Amino acid sequence: MVTFASMSLPLILISNDDGITAHGIRVLVEEMQKIGEVIVVAPDKPQSAMGHAITIMEPLRLKQSFIFEGVTAYECSGTPADCVKLALDKICPRRPDIMVSGINHGPNSSINVIYSGTMSAAVEAAVDGVQAIGFSLNDYSIEANFEHTRPYVQQIVQKMLEKPLPYGTLLNVNIPNTEFIKGIKVCRQCGGKYAENFEERVDPTGKKYYWMTGKFINLEPEDNDTDIWAIENDYISVVPTKFDLTSNSVIQHLRQLL
Amino acid sequence: MVTFASMSLPLILISNDDGITAHGIRVLVEEMQKIGEVIVVAPDKPQSAMGHAITIMEPLRLKQSFIFEGVTAYECSGTPADCVKLALDKICPRRPDIMVSGINHGPNSSINVIYSGTMSAAVEAAVDGVQAIGFSLNDYSIEANFEHTRPYVQQIVQKMLEKPLPYGTLLNVNIPNTEFIKGIKVCRQCGGKYAENFEERVDPTGKKYYWMTGKFINLEPEDNDTDIWAIENDYISVVPTKFDLTSNSVIQHLRQLL
Repeated sequence: MVTFASMSLPLILISNDDGITAHGIRVLVEEMQKIGEVIVVAPDKPQSAMGHAITIMEPLRLKQSFIFEGVTAYECSGTPADCVKLALDKICPRRPDIMVSGINHGPNSSINVIYSGTMSAAVEAAVDGVQAIGFSLNDYSIEANFEHTRPYVQQIVQKMLEKPLPYGTLLNVNIPNTEFIKGIKVCRQCGGKYAENFEERVDPTGKKYYWMTGKFINLEPEDNDTDIWAIENDYISVVPTKFDLTSNSVIQHLRQLL
Repeated sequence: MVTFASMSLPLILISNDDGITAHGIRVLVEEMQKIGEVIVVAPDKPQSAMGHAITIMEPLRLKQSFIFEGVTAYECSGTPADCVKLALDKICPRRPDIMVSGINHGPNSSINVIYSGTMSAAVEAAVDGVQAIGFSLNDYSIEANFEHTRPYVQQIVQKMLEKPLPYGTLLNVNIPNTEFIKGIKVCRQCGGKYAENFEERVDPTGKKYYWMTGKFINLEPEDNDTDIWAIENDYISVVPTKFDLTSNSVIQHLRQLL
């Protein structure tokens, strides 16, 4: 039996953290227009590394944007998570069938996921019960080439529309910066951290200030079931990601201790 | 055998997200001074709901503060996560034995953990391999009474110093706003979300703006093993929390699908 709802085009909400004018979001919009009805609510300026920040101390602005032909789009003064909250409450005419975030200029593999504005937009949608995927390209440059990502982005979104994930899970997809992609690997978040090395400088008045610089350290370089391994070996990494942060394996130990 | 290291006082790093002048951090500093050597690096202004934001596009400032007698303290222009990164790289003379964050004015139970600046500071330390605890009081008011939290904060920190958690886990501790605490419950993060309802207003020039307002929805109101249940029943909730966000239970399903 085909219901009216299943005959209509899926509603696809799009956001990102590089801002509405970034190249990565344009590629995502173009690909999603082939699948469904698209609504964009994205930051009016870059919001990288915003983590899951939300704006509670000041009001938010929305401004209609006409940069994507035939697409309802708004630029928002807030964070990626703000964009999704506002979109779901004020812009979307019905619940989106899926929310896609990105395509980020730069990877969100390993520990990057906790700093990622791209992923925070997707997490926000998932918490609200909307299927969600964050897409990132392993290339930080503003002129990054996204052409090779197109068929994979299409394919992964289509699969998620056909077989939605259970509540509590979304996807973190990282795409290598090569045209010679070997395939898709479903894998786990690699253990990793940054070795920070703040660069100390002195301003013209003699006061110190610090620039954050850091070098990523792979804590599991031998393992071949991680997202970092996949990307380094020219596979697209797909990590099912959750927002229940409970470390269940430690609960019994703690009950004895406390 | 008692080594030199074990005879010296533990080094305790403190931060928060309500800012260095908040009452909650003062209580934490006072209690930690009874246990060890204390270093504070905290935001110079409130940073609530900053999630795990870090500052990469502008430099950070540190300014020595003398508001805690006998304590090395700095106020930092950045986010809670920035504070911890800077403290570990530039301020701490050696690796801290533990990092404690808070005490937050307001709960970080359930889904609040992903928006929480308090928890982001603790997560940052834990990612770097430092034992870490985020403390929050279930009272948002700036005049909140923290007196009843003191013995429990002491007790939990002492236990963690004696029996450190494995890498990858930290504690999210929420304390009810009552003097009649029944005890400590080790529990899991409650399923929950916010029903957003942005309040639309019009500025003097006729342009719309939006205030975020929302009502928390408990998605598991029947369960008695969650942090929300514990707090509502006058128990302190302790949730072991992790930053590996992989949803392992979904990996097999996805491998068949993609």
